[in-house]
Amino acid sequence: MWGGRFAGGPAAVMREINASIAVDKRLWREDLTASKAHAAMLGAQGIISADEAAAIARGLDRIAEEYAAGKLVEDSALEDIHMHVEHRLGELIGPAAGKLHTARSRNDQVATDFKLFVRNCADEAIAGIDALEDALLARAEEHAATVMPGFTHLQSGQPVTLGHHLMAYVAMLARDRSRFLDARARMNESPLGSAALAGTGFDIDRDATAKTLGFDRPTTNSLDAVSDRDFAVDYLHAAALCSVHLSRLAEEIIMWASQPFGFVKLPDAWSTGSSIMPNKRNPDAAELVRGHSARIVGDLVALLVLLKGLPLAYAKDLQDDKPPLFDAHDLLSLSLAAMAGMITDLEFVPTKMRAAAAAGHATATELADWLAANGVPFREAHHIAGRAVALAEATGKALDELNLADLQGIDPRIGENALPRLSVEAAVKARGSAGGTAPDRVAEAVAAARAARRSR
Amino acid sequence: MWGGRFAGGPAAVMREINASIAVDKRLWREDLTASKAHAAMLGAQGIISADEAAAIARGLDRIAEEYAAGKLVEDSALEDIHMHVEHRLGELIGPAAGKLHTARSRNDQVATDFKLFVRNCADEAIAGIDALEDALLARAEEHAATVMPGFTHLQSGQPVTLGHHLMAYVAMLARDRSRFLDARARMNESPLGSAALAGTGFDIDRDATAKTLGFDRPTTNSLDAVSDRDFAVDYLHAAALCSVHLSRLAEEIIMWASQPFGFVKLPDAWSTGSSIMPNKRNPDAAELVRGHSARIVGDLVALLVLLKGLPLAYAKDLQDDKPPLFDAHDLLSLSLAAMAGMITDLEFVPTKMRAAAAAGHATATELADWLAANGVPFREAHHIAGRAVALAEATGKALDELNLADLQGIDPRIGENALPRLSVEAAVKARGSAGGTAPDRVAEAVAAARAARRSR
Amino acid sequence: MWGGRFAGGPAAVMREINASIAVDKRLWREDLTASKAHAAMLGAQGIISADEAAAIARGLDRIAEEYAAGKLVEDSALEDIHMHVEHRLGELIGPAAGKLHTARSRNDQVATDFKLFVRNCADEAIAGIDALEDALLARAEEHAATVMPGFTHLQSGQPVTLGHHLMAYVAMLARDRSRFLDARARMNESPLGSAALAGTGFDIDRDATAKTLGFDRPTTNSLDAVSDRDFAVDYLHAAALCSVHLSRLAEEIIMWASQPFGFVKLPDAWSTGSSIMPNKRNPDAAELVRGHSARIVGDLVALLVLLKGLPLAYAKDLQDDKPPLFDAHDLLSLSLAAMAGMITDLEFVPTKMRAAAAAGHATATELADWLAANGVPFREAHHIAGRAVALAEATGKALDELNLADLQGIDPRIGENALPRLSVEAAVKARGSAGGTAPDRVAEAVAAARAARRSR
Amino acid sequence: MWGGRFAGGPAAVMREINASIAVDKRLWREDLTASKAHAAMLGAQGIISADEAAAIARGLDRIAEEYAAGKLVEDSALEDIHMHVEHRLGELIGPAAGKLHTARSRNDQVATDFKLFVRNCADEAIAGIDALEDALLARAEEHAATVMPGFTHLQSGQPVTLGHHLMAYVAMLARDRSRFLDARARMNESPLGSAALAGTGFDIDRDATAKTLGFDRPTTNSLDAVSDRDFAVDYLHAAALCSVHLSRLAEEIIMWASQPFGFVKLPDAWSTGSSIMPNKRNPDAAELVRGHSARIVGDLVALLVLLKGLPLAYAKDLQDDKPPLFDAHDLLSLSLAAMAGMITDLEFVPTKMRAAAAAGHATATELADWLAANGVPFREAHHIAGRAVALAEATGKALDELNLADLQGIDPRIGENALPRLSVEAAVKARGSAGGTAPDRVAEAVAAARAARRSR
Repeated sequence: MWGGRFAGGPAAVMREINASIAVDKRLWREDLTASKAHAAMLGAQGIISADEAAAIARGLDRIAEEYAAGKLVEDSALEDIHMHVEHRLGELIGPAAGKLHTARSRNDQVATDFKLFVRNCADEAIAGIDALEDALLARAEEHAATVMPGFTHLQSGQPVTLGHHLMAYVAMLARDRSRFLDARARMNESPLGSAALAGTGFDIDRDATAKTLGFDRPTTNSLDAVSDRDFAVDYLHAAALCSVHLSRLAEEIIMWASQPFGFVKLPDAWSTGSSIMPNKRNPDAAELVRGHSARIVGDLVALLVLLKGLPLAYAKDLQDDKPPLFDAHDLLSLSLAAMAGMITDLEFVPTKMRAAAAAGHATATELADWLAANGVPFREAHHIAGRAVALAEATGKALDELNLADLQGIDPRIGENALPRLSVEAAVKARGSAGGTAPDRVAEAVAAARAARRSR
Repeated sequence: MWGGRFAGGPAAVMREINASIAVDKRLWREDLTASKAHAAMLGAQGIISADEAAAIARGLDRIAEEYAAGKLVEDSALEDIHMHVEHRLGELIGPAAGKLHTARSRNDQVATDFKLFVRNCADEAIAGIDALEDALLARAEEHAATVMPGFTHLQSGQPVTLGHHLMAYVAMLARDRSRFLDARARMNESPLGSAALAGTGFDIDRDATAKTLGFDRPTTNSLDAVSDRDFAVDYLHAAALCSVHLSRLAEEIIMWASQPFGFVKLPDAWSTGSSIMPNKRNPDAAELVRGHSARIVGDLVALLVLLKGLPLAYAKDLQDDKPPLFDAHDLLSLSLAAMAGMITDLEFVPTKMRAAAAAGHATATELADWLAANGVPFREAHHIAGRAVALAEATGKALDELNLADLQGIDPRIGENALPRLSVEAAVKARGSAGGTAPDRVAEAVAAARAARRSR
Repeated sequence: MWGGRFAGGPAAVMREINASIAVDKRLWREDLTASKAHAAMLGAQGIISADEAAAIARGLDRIAEEYAAGKLVEDSALEDIHMHVEHRLGELIGPAAGKLHTARSRNDQVATDFKLFVRNCADEAIAGIDALEDALLARAEEHAATVMPGFTHLQSGQPVTLGHHLMAYVAMLARDRSRFLDARARMNESPLGSAALAGTGFDIDRDATAKTLGFDRPTTNSLDAVSDRDFAVDYLHAAALCSVHLSRLAEEIIMWASQPFGFVKLPDAWSTGSSIMPNKRNPDAAELVRGHSARIVGDLVALLVLLKGLPLAYAKDLQDDKPPLFDAHDLLSLSLAAMAGMITDLEFVPTKMRAAAAAGHATATELADWLAANGVPFREAHHIAGRAVALAEATGKALDELNLADLQGIDPRIGENALPRLSVEAAVKARGSAGGTAPDRVAEAVAAARAARRSR
Repeated sequence: MWGGRFAGGPAAVMREINASIAVDKRLWREDLTASKAHAAMLGAQGIISADEAAAIARGLDRIAEEYAAGKLVEDSALEDIHMHVEHRLGELIGPAAGKLHTARSRNDQVATDFKLFVRNCADEAIAGIDALEDALLARAEEHAATVMPGFTHLQSGQPVTLGHHLMAYVAMLARDRSRFLDARARMNESPLGSAALAGTGFDIDRDATAKTLGFDRPTTNSLDAVSDRDFAVDYLHAAALCSVHLSRLAEEIIMWASQPFGFVKLPDAWSTGSSIMPNKRNPDAAELVRGHSARIVGDLVALLVLLKGLPLAYAKDLQDDKPPLFDAHDLLSLSLAAMAGMITDLEFVPTKMRAAAAAGHATATELADWLAANGVPFREAHHIAGRAVALAEATGKALDELNLADLQGIDPRIGENALPRLSVEAAVKARGSAGGTAPDRVAEAVAAARAARRSR
């Protein structure tokens, strides 16, 4: 294809390292779509004839049918998907195929194809987020008043509601969605027509191809357009952070399913067994979600490192942009789907959660807060409550098993009406500040999240 | 401070690993600002008395004066900036200081402080980007018609204008600015009032503190609010990608300043010499900008890895969020400033650029385009132009030194009016498609970038 | 210092980005040591006079005293530690100071200084590993027969001994030590005498300086020697992997200290409390160890990215090698010390561990093994044991509470002597294969680890 | 396969996320080899009968033939390669197949298989390094006296020889080789016989299987053995650093091939053209080598992150260890082979190198050294030489075109015999210190590298 000046052919290893068809064949739909848009524009502008434009369009449609039917034959001599399409188009429609490449280079072509692909990945990620959010909202609503221990430092801190805990992930997912939307908006400029690096002398209409391909506008600088991969980095950042959120939820599921916690039971559909230990019921899907986050972080690193220090404009290094992106997209899609399935199917065990919530004197803050509300500076109130905990520990009681005399022995200012505050249910109900764990607040948060979805 | 229940003190190593004051003292302004907002709200809500609120406000102002004067005395027994402030406030105003901690925990306090800090980092990054953009626009305008080689694969591809090349970085910076703005908008919710993890039973007004602190609204979930560090990751992503862009420009400056290129001369103000080689004039600042991008990528990785797999809510691991963020902010600020200075002061050498632009038969595409515009399918035109290059190489001529007879010997369809197209000036002028390298297009792009800045 | 050719001074930002004294002052001991070695060699070779060599040596000793007393005055105009020393030496001994720089450049000087520093970091890491190993061995010996659940997928799999569990970390640490030793051996070649990049024409004796500085030999290629930072990457790799091991142990301590597990109690010396929740006893040190691993991974990434794509020889980017290295060294040292302290002081709760070990039918594998040992193919035996687990679950019994009739109802081949195998103590004792969990094996492993240490 | 206790089957997404056969089928050779070793040991120990052992061995051989012939049929219901082999063995030899899994779990099985694979990757990396070293040595010998500019900061510093420059990469490769050898030695312990996590009660002989599989000894702790992936991290570290070295060489080839440098010509076999620019001859292979280093760094990050914070023992996250390892191995193998081919076939252009070496007053250090050797303190000598450079610049001359009067006008101590030192050939010859660039030193280094190879 660039033979005019070349005498010898490539070395075998050169061909192997250079061919990307095994990877970039995945862009075939985008390549055909972008080529159709380009050909139609060339025809409309009179750069090629209407007949030529029509022949090219028919040929590209035919290729789309063939590829959809699995008939793409990989040939490393044809390097990449662009050359496979070009070659096949030549077989189908003859020399007119060569006119498709007027006012276009592989540099702007691949930038366009890849951007279309990544844009679609962002859309799919958002759909996956929506589905997981639905699953979380349903379970949060169901468990708006279910009491569980709220941990900080993995130490029982204060009782919370399971619904509130699940809604924390809804808050993370809302940011994840916003991140993908921002990335999508920022990337939505068409590189097509930037040609090799400098633009073209043909009278092309970049607005037209941008519009056809769903872009908001053309890119503004041809050198940048062919060497920019920010859009893939933005996607990978959003994917990495989303997967890190999923890894946090996965970690919790794994821990909750562990015998000492026993907060959840994994249904058979989401468990595996052991090849040696007949008693096992393993949370493999959650572990894989947790593991996948590591690989997506690795993918993000790969692309940032790839770009570091590259001079303008296009460099072949950029061919290595696709494997990390494809990998991250596949892993994130699967992780979101698996997590939505697990959340929907998990069997929560409220009795175990309730019991754990009461352990660890988790309502000591209530006592401190009661004192503070009755005029004791909080730091002093905190100290008094700490001594109550020490007494409970020393006497082997739960904090709410101490009687008024015990408590007044520590500080006479503790009144009788402090005692009802010390049950986990009362504690949870009390924390009704905005964004707090009280059941009513959880119900409101669920409703608000649903309303936000409807208004998008 | 949490002594009520504790008998023994910390081990020496424990104190050393646990104390963060040496790092988080940098948050003192934000800590005082957020505490003032909290105290005012507690007073307004009647949770503490007006006198107490006023005393606290006065005390905090006094501490601000002291710290601004460098009078913060680090004490590892006081762990962190929050405890230093609390302790000093107690010295200044007595037991009322303890009331400041009503309905608040260090968990929501540090989340608020750190978010205020990161928000400011985003603002500073945008200011740095604006300054660098100004420098680039000035030089791009000056060199809108200066011809230089346009490289792909670092091979001379087509001639471009220096102004167009510089405007490629303006396009990158526009995305960088948008990325920081998106991050800022997404993070701008107030965690204050989330308390330890579950909200609080006090009748606080989170809207009020959010408004005072310039946040758009309070966060929606207390468990998420105290364990969320997405805002720092978003900043680090924007910083990493911006620094990667700077590393690309730095790489070019380094290469352009190298003797074989000679495209630029480094002024003394941006050069260093060698301790052994008297002839050296080294582009240290550009190299450091390039190097700094590696560290910022490392900082981003650190924070993503930190968050991976952390169960809710706050965990002490999160204390390690600050060093990477501070590091990245300092490095990016310095990189942007250094790059703005270098771009402003660089001496370009147009004669060297012009000579290099003509090398490598860089206008061969013009010949192919001329043929394509005259009805030869582009692929065939490309082949013919390739043979012209081969002839020029074989005869030791530049492409535009071939005469019509030479060219028609290759293909008789090459017409006389093709020849004027083969000078680098003509080539550059011809590439006038939207976003292309033609001088007029560059001037338009400069004007458009300035207009966009004015309309922000 | 390189003023012969320079008219103007550096810009303010240039000075700020370029000065490294705030960071590299930490190399002052190494810089003085290497300079003394170089001066002595220059004197011995007759390149400078004996008097000059002696004056330089005295001057350097004097500077060492000053710096040890904290009298290094940072001056950004003097850029780095090398120039500070050179400048001060000039003040102390006059023009002879200038002779120290014969046959040497900052390029080989900093490579030598930094390598000496990193070599010492490796030695300190090994010392820290030894101390943690001692702590682990002591506790493993103490708990060689203490039964706890052995988890895979965090599901109770088979009972193991606590001693065996702790010895898993001894195995990791043995690899960590070996990794630091390998790194140390590989780096132990002296760059001194490579000069700026090309060697020198002076008749220097590189073997002599190498020997003085404890290196095994001089490096073999001057271009490589001044631009090589492999030694720092090797250290960072060893540090990152060691810290990842520590993060695994930290994760376990955090989980074990959580109320639902309750396997350990944290002594006051290694706990912190909460500013709001009086009941808390937080494993901050373990969390910080876990968090530090993230930052060390980030440091490794930073250095790898820094080196990527750098042409030979020295580039100023390399100045950014020190912050990640210093950071990782400090974090690892503290992590190892904190972990050794925690392991020594942790209070294990064998009753909770024993109870958890019996949960989850963790001896089902014993039943399968008994069947396999009695001629049933393992896959079939596994299936039979699985049905026994299902029966136990259905009837709410532990596996070892099933009686012989129950079991023979599942498969008549189950004999009476299978039953004693089903207690956790019997199960643990049975697993006596090499490297297995049986108490005797643990005792042997402890003895073997101690013997290996003695023979180093 | 673990159905005894499970009622329902997996969800579709669960099956998709859980199945690893598409990835781990690549371990089939290792899986069969390790199974054969295990079966033979079971027979020798009398745990299974000799007939059973023989049947299993025959069955495994048969499967090896089938798989080698491409007859592995992937079935996601069979999850992984281990289950595929087990299932097929059952089809071939009946229930005796079930006995293979006596005293073994997938946990120790996959650790063994993967370690065998990684060990082989290390061996292949070393072979690739050897081949590239051969190529470098041949070219270094050929160009031991070819003069080129020696750059620091990409500024012409001092002239060096091309042979010396190439030998810098030989020095890096020597460290790379040593790193792979260290990794190989450290990993070479057999996990087989660790069973699920705790060892086994069967009377197995782990020394025997270790020996059969070429391991130095069995691992010492079963919990560690099934959850250790250090060996893969060690490989990835060695691969990442080796690929970073290759990226440095690739960067130089790309720059040297650029028109302004013109130090090398790329043969057709290692070039590609452009789809739009007929004049292009692109160094794609070098760019891909540079790009691949980014992906290998990403792979290393992925595995480190994966392991961070994982509790003992095996977790399913570890299934994600293989894709990064396979990716890095493939990329490194191809990079080494491509680089060996390019180095062998590159056409160096000594005339361009020689001309560039003389530019930039690169012999100024010679003048400073001459003065220092004649009693002028080096710092003063450096200053004088700097003034000579300034004079040459001001008068548009090369440094060695200044005459004695010019030089003595700067400093009268400059003697006539200083002048011959100022040619690039003299400068190169003069730098004959150990590891220096003088042609004789290069020849010695080539010989030493070859001798070192022979003695391995």
